[in-house]
Amino acid sequence: MKFYTSTNEIPEEMLKGIDLTYPQLTYLPETGILYDNTYNEKTVPIISGGGSGHEPAHVGYVGSGMLAAAVTGPLFIPPKSKNILKAIRQVNSGKGVFVIIKNFEADLKEFNEAIKEARNEGIDVRYIVSHDDISVNAYNFHKRHRGVAGTILLHKILGAFAKEGGSIDEIEQLALSLSPEIYTLGVALAPVHFPHQKTSFVLAEDEVSFGIGIHGEPGYRVEKFEDSERIAVELVNKLKAEINWQKKKSK
Amino acid sequence: MKFYTSTNEIPEEMLKGIDLTYPQLTYLPETGILYDNTYNEKTVPIISGGGSGHEPAHVGYVGSGMLAAAVTGPLFIPPKSKNILKAIRQVNSGKGVFVIIKNFEADLKEFNEAIKEARNEGIDVRYIVSHDDISVNAYNFHKRHRGVAGTILLHKILGAFAKEGGSIDEIEQLALSLSPEIYTLGVALAPVHFPHQKTSFVLAEDEVSFGIGIHGEPGYRVEKFEDSERIAVELVNKLKAEINWQKKKSK
Repeated sequence: MKFYTSTNEIPEEMLKGIDLTYPQLTYLPETGILYDNTYNEKTVPIISGGGSGHEPAHVGYVGSGMLAAAVTGPLFIPPKSKNILKAIRQVNSGKGVFVIIKNFEADLKEFNEAIKEARNEGIDVRYIVSHDDISVNAYNFHKRHRGVAGTILLHKILGAFAKEGGSIDEIEQLALSLSPEIYTLGVALAPVHFPHQKTSFVLAEDEVSFGIGIHGEPGYRVEKFEDSERIAVELVNKLKAEINWQKKKSK
Repeated sequence: MKFYTSTNEIPEEMLKGIDLTYPQLTYLPETGILYDNTYNEKTVPIISGGGSGHEPAHVGYVGSGMLAAAVTGPLFIPPKSKNILKAIRQVNSGKGVFVIIKNFEADLKEFNEAIKEARNEGIDVRYIVSHDDISVNAYNFHKRHRGVAGTILLHKILGAFAKEGGSIDEIEQLALSLSPEIYTLGVALAPVHFPHQKTSFVLAEDEVSFGIGIHGEPGYRVEKFEDSERIAVELVNKLKAEINWQKKKSK
């Protein structure tokens, strides 16, 4: 929470630190691109990315059977399309490149621009947008469908599938069938602490907030913390409702 | 920090949860013993343990190439000798059992009792006491030599060595040469939060404490947090002094 050298340099220093720590990971300075230098070029590379501040996503999932590269922006700000394009070029070996994008407007804008450019260069880029969040807006009860924790399941499942030899077509098909079946709901024990800024919402030591977002977006309900079981019940009930639990069970 | 069902049940619930989550790990209820049910009986099992509240130590290091079993007591209280003895029996397959003990009086008492009993039963038990901590007592500058974070290096190095076929004699020799060469120094950004109790020391949001212990023991110096580099300099300088850095370098 307070363990850094200077606020502006957090993401760049973190990425350089990861490069130093792990021989198999290489960081391209000033680009936000971290890639697996042992990546098997016979398989289809999967990449993902987004703002930093969500660690271990996405850099923590670069490795064998997961992402071939991650591209990271400043704190809570998506990477620029030019860096996403660089990442696509970096991992491309002619078998196509698969991109996992979290469903946020700013992310979609940058990733779509990069994908368009890469396709213009003749790279076969496919993508999936993760939108696993079933939290609702507290004012109008609209579902938010943000791409949040479930994105990591896509990294792992698609990454393992690619490692086993899945083609770009097969990976795209699997992604399209998987993504709508992933549902998550977040709960916060504390608000997000952004260095030198006030938190985006206030939560007492004995309170929890359901349905919060990964950038400190407030949830749909604040409650006194009773016990972890109460929280599990709320989360599981909401997830069950979403997937029509009873109906599926009786099949 | 506050995510639990009831304070008394935290360790037991945690261990049952780990059993549910990982097919290869089995928890023996009411004993604090978690073991690797895929453990290769042709190799020498290594076990460790201590109070709970230090997770991921020790239960997080049960697995292939690490510990065959961990035995856990209540929060910050070492396991009873009878449960340590049960753990030794559980993993014993006739090749000897190696035990890693953290250097705390209460831990040594329970582990030594269990080892004595196990030897009476004819089990060839060897052990090492980890004492990596180079923090000093702020009042008399005596070294504390507690067994802390460096214990994990013993789990990993000895575990990997055992997996490769090291005998109980060889493991003991390696442990005896390794343990005195491991030095660590802790720094805290926050005090330990014990459920429903006051913290053992107070640390402001912008302060850090050097040389703290793993049970909330105060460190030897509190400083305003400047940046992470300042902390790294303090830690590295102290470690260098301990190992007589210059002299070794010039060899």
